[in-house]
Amino acid sequence: MPAMPPANAQDAAEFYAVIPAGGAGTRLWPLSRSGTPKFLHDLTGAGRSLLQSTVDRLAAVADDSHVLVVTGARHVRAVREQLPALADTNVLAEPSPRDSMAAIGLAAAVLQERHGDVVLGSFAADQVITSTPSFVAAVREGIEAARAGYVTTIGIAASRPSIAFGYVRSGELLDIAGAPSVRQVLGFTEKPDAETARRYLETGEYRWNAGMFITRTSVLLDHLAREHPDLHAGLVTVARAWDTPERDTVVANVWPTLERIAIDHAIAEPVAAAGGVAMVPGNFGWDDVGDFNSLAALLPAVDGAGSKVLGDQDRVVRLASAGSVIVPAGGRTVAVLGLDDVVVVDTPDAVLVTTRARAQELKSVVDAVRDRGLDDLL
Amino acid sequence: MPAMPPANAQDAAEFYAVIPAGGAGTRLWPLSRSGTPKFLHDLTGAGRSLLQSTVDRLAAVADDSHVLVVTGARHVRAVREQLPALADTNVLAEPSPRDSMAAIGLAAAVLQERHGDVVLGSFAADQVITSTPSFVAAVREGIEAARAGYVTTIGIAASRPSIAFGYVRSGELLDIAGAPSVRQVLGFTEKPDAETARRYLETGEYRWNAGMFITRTSVLLDHLAREHPDLHAGLVTVARAWDTPERDTVVANVWPTLERIAIDHAIAEPVAAAGGVAMVPGNFGWDDVGDFNSLAALLPAVDGAGSKVLGDQDRVVRLASAGSVIVPAGGRTVAVLGLDDVVVVDTPDAVLVTTRARAQELKSVVDAVRDRGLDDLL
Repeated sequence: MPAMPPANAQDAAEFYAVIPAGGAGTRLWPLSRSGTPKFLHDLTGAGRSLLQSTVDRLAAVADDSHVLVVTGARHVRAVREQLPALADTNVLAEPSPRDSMAAIGLAAAVLQERHGDVVLGSFAADQVITSTPSFVAAVREGIEAARAGYVTTIGIAASRPSIAFGYVRSGELLDIAGAPSVRQVLGFTEKPDAETARRYLETGEYRWNAGMFITRTSVLLDHLAREHPDLHAGLVTVARAWDTPERDTVVANVWPTLERIAIDHAIAEPVAAAGGVAMVPGNFGWDDVGDFNSLAALLPAVDGAGSKVLGDQDRVVRLASAGSVIVPAGGRTVAVLGLDDVVVVDTPDAVLVTTRARAQELKSVVDAVRDRGLDDLL
Repeated sequence: MPAMPPANAQDAAEFYAVIPAGGAGTRLWPLSRSGTPKFLHDLTGAGRSLLQSTVDRLAAVADDSHVLVVTGARHVRAVREQLPALADTNVLAEPSPRDSMAAIGLAAAVLQERHGDVVLGSFAADQVITSTPSFVAAVREGIEAARAGYVTTIGIAASRPSIAFGYVRSGELLDIAGAPSVRQVLGFTEKPDAETARRYLETGEYRWNAGMFITRTSVLLDHLAREHPDLHAGLVTVARAWDTPERDTVVANVWPTLERIAIDHAIAEPVAAAGGVAMVPGNFGWDDVGDFNSLAALLPAVDGAGSKVLGDQDRVVRLASAGSVIVPAGGRTVAVLGLDDVVVVDTPDAVLVTTRARAQELKSVVDAVRDRGLDDLL
């Protein structure tokens, strides 16, 4: 059963979108760097960064005054530049990364301080979604389920037995007004092995967990208070000081003491076990653009040989090359002769040459670059 | 029989080295460009360009006052910068390329005007030779054969049945004083097919023709006057004006009319048929560095996997990659993951990614770059 909404909550509690903007995107090096991580990049050729696209697709349910970005202190300037319509108070700077529960919990506590009990929807800044209308429809159902007291997630149709994603298992329909397709969640699973993933798909009960959560702030904070009382107390202390002159002092004292834990482990799994999590089945294409191979899948082919280019096609010369993925992001011409399924990423200070099959292993290159002491490239 | 030396020739006629510095090195693009062709590059990591190395290795037989470089007008500045010890008069500028007979014939005619009958040795500026003492020993024998009236070439030991080079076929020893290993040349051949090349090697009579010729200027010009009288007349006219105020006018009038022909066809083949060509067998390693695969063969391996780097090894990160050839000439870090025998050439405005097996086909890339209108990259 869901947590009961507090007595003072309105059925039509306002909706705020929270966008955690973090993660280095190591497997997209050298395009993605610690200083300019994945979410700041246009990875689809749409002319908008992943962060901007995330805000764009939420516009129908959350205008700029209802969007909160939580990001690392070093990225605040870039986030504001990319989202000039956002008020400064709508960009929350984490002094250091403390994992997703602290980031989303901070947003929940600050929203609760500022607006009382509202509905919060958390959507990572570095994902690609192909149908905004379907996404918005799912979010609207999720908001209704959240208003009814559920921690609600959006389950992504698993188009293949991926071992790169966690899964969410759904049960019965919940019969929530305005949320006809929302189902009970029976549980979450970690990334499975290939055999398990195949079994999941056969049952028809499993969807990918994209880490999207929609919940009342009061519900989230109550769950957190029960499951992780110290983390809850710390976040509430920080949130109370956030819009006061004491913010810096309190943050400096409290933030480094906060428990590092993902929201999946902190809230989603225990609350699901208690029957308090619901799921909207999302009917939209989704990808987390984890590496250059999945990036390639999102881009249209530029020739009959399945070649993909992210950037200016006039800067790419391909001969006897099929299925290549070329990213001319260094202002140079990139010429490829006689290699299939090759990945070439050109940036102003580093060039990567690998294969689509090796795209998942890029962390080894990043580690080697670090071992070489070339930290300015990371 | 060789042409008889003119009556006024001294046995100890002075030796001058002529270095034709031309050729774009298309198959070394994007390192080699029309504006900075192959001979201006250090392709061995020695710290000296191929042109500088060519002059260096001739030092024992030709000091700076005895070296003449013939190059395109647009490369004169770069040649002088790389060879500051050369007098301006020792760099001959061709207003346009008219093939090797015009280039070497001009040098011969100018030398004859300036110094009377001397011995001229022509050595291309874009070749790599691994043993200078052996090379110098061969040149010294060649000078003696030239003094005796022969057009003399240096034959390179054919270490494999290459189809990329022409061959020279040798006959009996000639018994020339100071040139004990010099043999009669029976003929020259064009680049053979693979089967023919194999047969050549089996006979033991064939060596690679590296295009090196050593001859008296008078002998060369006499042969030219007989075989190509118009070309001879034009070159003599230009040479007479060369060191006078009329040079520009005469060059402008005459040069564009000169026949375009290689010295091999113009002189070497007909004179060999008449018995006037001799060959010194060279006992040194030689390569014309025609493409990145032959470049790789010249470089030492930088790891146990046969990887080669031309440039700063600290700028190269290799993982799961054997036999790769990396040229980090763009000031960037180059990372390669999971590709064997790959060629990556990074320059400030173009990046090439290909394979060692495709290195010979690079002209197709250059053609594609030209078709794309990116002429500033060529």
